[in-house]
Amino acid sequence: MTTELSPDALTEVLARARQDYQDLTARGLSLNLTRGKPAPEQLDLSEELLNLPLGVHTSADGTDVRNYGGLQGLPELREIFAEVLQVPAGQLLAAGNSSLELMHDCLVHALLGVLPGATSRWVEQERIAFLCPVPGYDRHFALCERFGIDMIPVPMTAEGPDMDVVEQLVAEDPTVKGIWCVPKYSNPDGACYSDATVARLASMNTAAPDFRIFWDNAYATHHLTEEPVEIADLLAACDEAGNPDRAFVFGSSSKITMAGAGVAFFGSSTANLKWLLGHNAKRSIGPDKVNQLRHVQFLRDADGVRGHMERQRALLQPKFEAVARILEAELGGTGLATWTAPRGGYFVTLQVPDGCAKEVVRRATEAGIALTPAGATHPYGNDPRDAVIRIAPSYPSLPELEQALEGLAVCVRLVGYEQQAR
Amino acid sequence: MTTELSPDALTEVLARARQDYQDLTARGLSLNLTRGKPAPEQLDLSEELLNLPLGVHTSADGTDVRNYGGLQGLPELREIFAEVLQVPAGQLLAAGNSSLELMHDCLVHALLGVLPGATSRWVEQERIAFLCPVPGYDRHFALCERFGIDMIPVPMTAEGPDMDVVEQLVAEDPTVKGIWCVPKYSNPDGACYSDATVARLASMNTAAPDFRIFWDNAYATHHLTEEPVEIADLLAACDEAGNPDRAFVFGSSSKITMAGAGVAFFGSSTANLKWLLGHNAKRSIGPDKVNQLRHVQFLRDADGVRGHMERQRALLQPKFEAVARILEAELGGTGLATWTAPRGGYFVTLQVPDGCAKEVVRRATEAGIALTPAGATHPYGNDPRDAVIRIAPSYPSLPELEQALEGLAVCVRLVGYEQQAR
Repeated sequence: MTTELSPDALTEVLARARQDYQDLTARGLSLNLTRGKPAPEQLDLSEELLNLPLGVHTSADGTDVRNYGGLQGLPELREIFAEVLQVPAGQLLAAGNSSLELMHDCLVHALLGVLPGATSRWVEQERIAFLCPVPGYDRHFALCERFGIDMIPVPMTAEGPDMDVVEQLVAEDPTVKGIWCVPKYSNPDGACYSDATVARLASMNTAAPDFRIFWDNAYATHHLTEEPVEIADLLAACDEAGNPDRAFVFGSSSKITMAGAGVAFFGSSTANLKWLLGHNAKRSIGPDKVNQLRHVQFLRDADGVRGHMERQRALLQPKFEAVARILEAELGGTGLATWTAPRGGYFVTLQVPDGCAKEVVRRATEAGIALTPAGATHPYGNDPRDAVIRIAPSYPSLPELEQALEGLAVCVRLVGYEQQAR
Repeated sequence: MTTELSPDALTEVLARARQDYQDLTARGLSLNLTRGKPAPEQLDLSEELLNLPLGVHTSADGTDVRNYGGLQGLPELREIFAEVLQVPAGQLLAAGNSSLELMHDCLVHALLGVLPGATSRWVEQERIAFLCPVPGYDRHFALCERFGIDMIPVPMTAEGPDMDVVEQLVAEDPTVKGIWCVPKYSNPDGACYSDATVARLASMNTAAPDFRIFWDNAYATHHLTEEPVEIADLLAACDEAGNPDRAFVFGSSSKITMAGAGVAFFGSSTANLKWLLGHNAKRSIGPDKVNQLRHVQFLRDADGVRGHMERQRALLQPKFEAVARILEAELGGTGLATWTAPRGGYFVTLQVPDGCAKEVVRRATEAGIALTPAGATHPYGNDPRDAVIRIAPSYPSLPELEQALEGLAVCVRLVGYEQQAR
C-alpha cells in the first residue's frame, strides 16, 4: 500500500501533516464517529409511530395487544418482516427492541438448555468455540467473551468469510459450535455474502451436530444505491441441504424505525423456534405487542418498509458519498490508506498501514474526533496487523461529518508519515 | 375443617350437589379464572398512554429517547418508582415490559457470571437451592425448575414465610442461595410481610456469602381497601444489617398501566446494580426509552401512580367482594372450604379438603370454568395436601365472575361431599 517517497518529499509531507494536526487540535472539535447510530433526521422519518396505534388495540386475530400473551409476536408484523428477512412468518418470532438481546438469549439458552441436535448443554462441555469472520462486529465478540466462548478469527473476503478456512475448521473440530455472520452490507466492511458462500455454509459438514450460524441480517433493507443487493435464502438452503436447524436468523427495525424503540426478530426452523419459545415462555409473558401494532400500522407491508428505507437512503447516501469524496481528496494517491465503498449498511472500513490504526485513533481522539477503538473489529480487541479503523458516518450532520473526515485524514497522514520517517 | 354430617344429610347434600353440577355443565359456560390478568376496563384507564409522548422526545437530561443508549433507564421514570418500590432512584434500573424477565436474567447472570460476594459462578457449583414459601407464584418456581435450581418449600404464615424454618435452612446449608418473596399482598394468599419478618430476612446469618432475596414487589400499590398496607424497606434493612447486597427488588407497571406494554424495574445495592448493568451492557443497547417517557408523561409522579391505582381499585374491589360474598353464600358453614380475604393484590386462595383440589379443578374445567392447575402454587406443581386452589378474579366481567364462582362452589360441594361419602 505504501508509496515510496524520497527523504525530502517525506520531510515535506510530514511537516505539512504536523502543521495540519496542530491546526486541527486548535479547532477544539467534539465529533463522534464511533457507533452506527441513526441521526435525529432519520428518527424523524418515523415520527408518526409516536402517535400510534390509532383506534384499535386488537391484532388481526382478535388479541388485545395491551394485555399479556402472544409470545411469538403479532402475526401481521411477522408477515411484514417475513419477506424482508427471508423467513416464513410462521417461523418468525417478533420480540422487543433489540436483536442483540435475542442473540444473547440464544447463547444463554444453548449454554443452559439443550439445543435441538445437541447431546448436552454447552455449559457442560469443556470448550465452546465460535468462528468470527474479521473484521466483524464488536458486540458479537463481546457476547462470546462474556460467556467464555473461544473466538477463532476467519478472514473475510468480498464474498463473505473465507469458506475454505471455515469448512476445514468446522469439519475437524466438534467444539466449534457456531459462526457469526452479517451477511449483507457486513459490519464493518460492507461485504455481501455470495450465493456460493451461502450454499457452502448451508451444506458444509460440521463435526458438531449442534452447529449454528448466527445470521445477523441487520442491514437487510439498508441499501445505499439504487440497486439493492439480494442475498441467497440461508434458511431455505439449510433446509434443502438437510441441515434444517443450522440457521438462527436475526433482524430488527432498530435502523428502520427507532433505534431504541423498534422491534426485533428471530427466525429459524420449526424445531429451533419451538426451543426458543419454550425458554421464552419461562422468561416472559409476551413482548410489547402495542409497539408491534404501532409498527404494523406505520409500515403496513414489505413495500412500506422499502419505501421507508428509500427515505432513509436519501439521508444516508450523501454522508457515505462525503466520506468517499473526502478520503479520496485527502488520502488518494498517498498510499497511506484504502477504504471500502459499501453498497449498503452503516460503515466504511478504513485500512491504514500496519501498526498505525491505534495511533491514528489516539491522535483523532486527542483532536476531539471520537472513533471506535482500533481493534474493536477483531475478537478480544486484537487486530494483529493494527490496521483496521471502522468509520460510522450516520450520526453526525453532514458538515460535522466532513470536518471529522478531514480531521481523520490529517491523523492518517501524520501517523503514516511518522511511521515512514522512523 | 370438615363438619360432621349424618349419613342421611350427606346423601341429601350430595344429591343436590350432583344435580347442581349437572345443571352447571348443561349451561355450556366458558369462563376463565386462571391468570392474574387485568380486565379490558383496567387497561382502558391507561388509554392516554397510547397517544404519548407528546411533543418532546428528549428526557430530562437531554437524551433523545428514540435512539440507542441509556442502559439504566430514564432518570425521571426511576424517580417516580423510587418511592413506590422503596429503592433510591440512583439504585433503580428501568427496563422493558416485564419484571419476570429481570428475575430470569438475574438468575442467568448469577449462573453464568460471578455475583458480588460469590466465589464462583453458580453453574460451577454442585447444587443450587432456593427457598420457596408456599403457596407461591408458579412462574418463580418455573424459573428454578428450568435452571435446575432445587426448590425447598417453606410454609407461609400471615406475616410471611415461617422465619424459624428460613433462618435454620439458610444458616446451615451453603447451597441455599436465594428465597422467592412476594412481600405485599402475596401471590396467591395475600399475606403481607411484617416488619419483624423483613428485619429477620435482612439480618439472618446465611451460610452462602452470595445469598439473595428475590423481592418481587409486584403488588406494591395494588390495594383493595382504603387502608394501604405498608411494608418495611428491605433494601435499607439489609444495608443496616451489614448485608447490603442481599436484596434484589423487582417491580413493574404491568398491573398499573398495560400488562403487555409496561415498564419493569430492578433495584438493589450499588454493587449489584453495577453487576447487572455490566451484563446488560453486553446484551442490549438500552431499553425502550420512548415507552419509558410515555409512562413519565402519563403517571407524572408517585402521587399520579397512587391516583391511578385508586381507579384500578374501583374496578377490582367489587370483584373481590363478589368472590367473598359468593363463597360465603355457597360454602359458608359447609366446612368444605376456607378462603383468604386479601387487602390487595390479584388473588384469592381457596382451601378445600385435603385430596380434593385437583378433582375440583378437573370438575370445574369440565363445566367450562378454567382454573389455574391445582398444585401450581407449589414447587414442581406438587401440593402435598392437594388442597390449594388459586382464584384470579380480575379478568372476567362481574357477571361472568359471579357465574364462575357459583359454578366453582358447586364443584367444591360435589367433590367434598363425594369424598365424605366414600
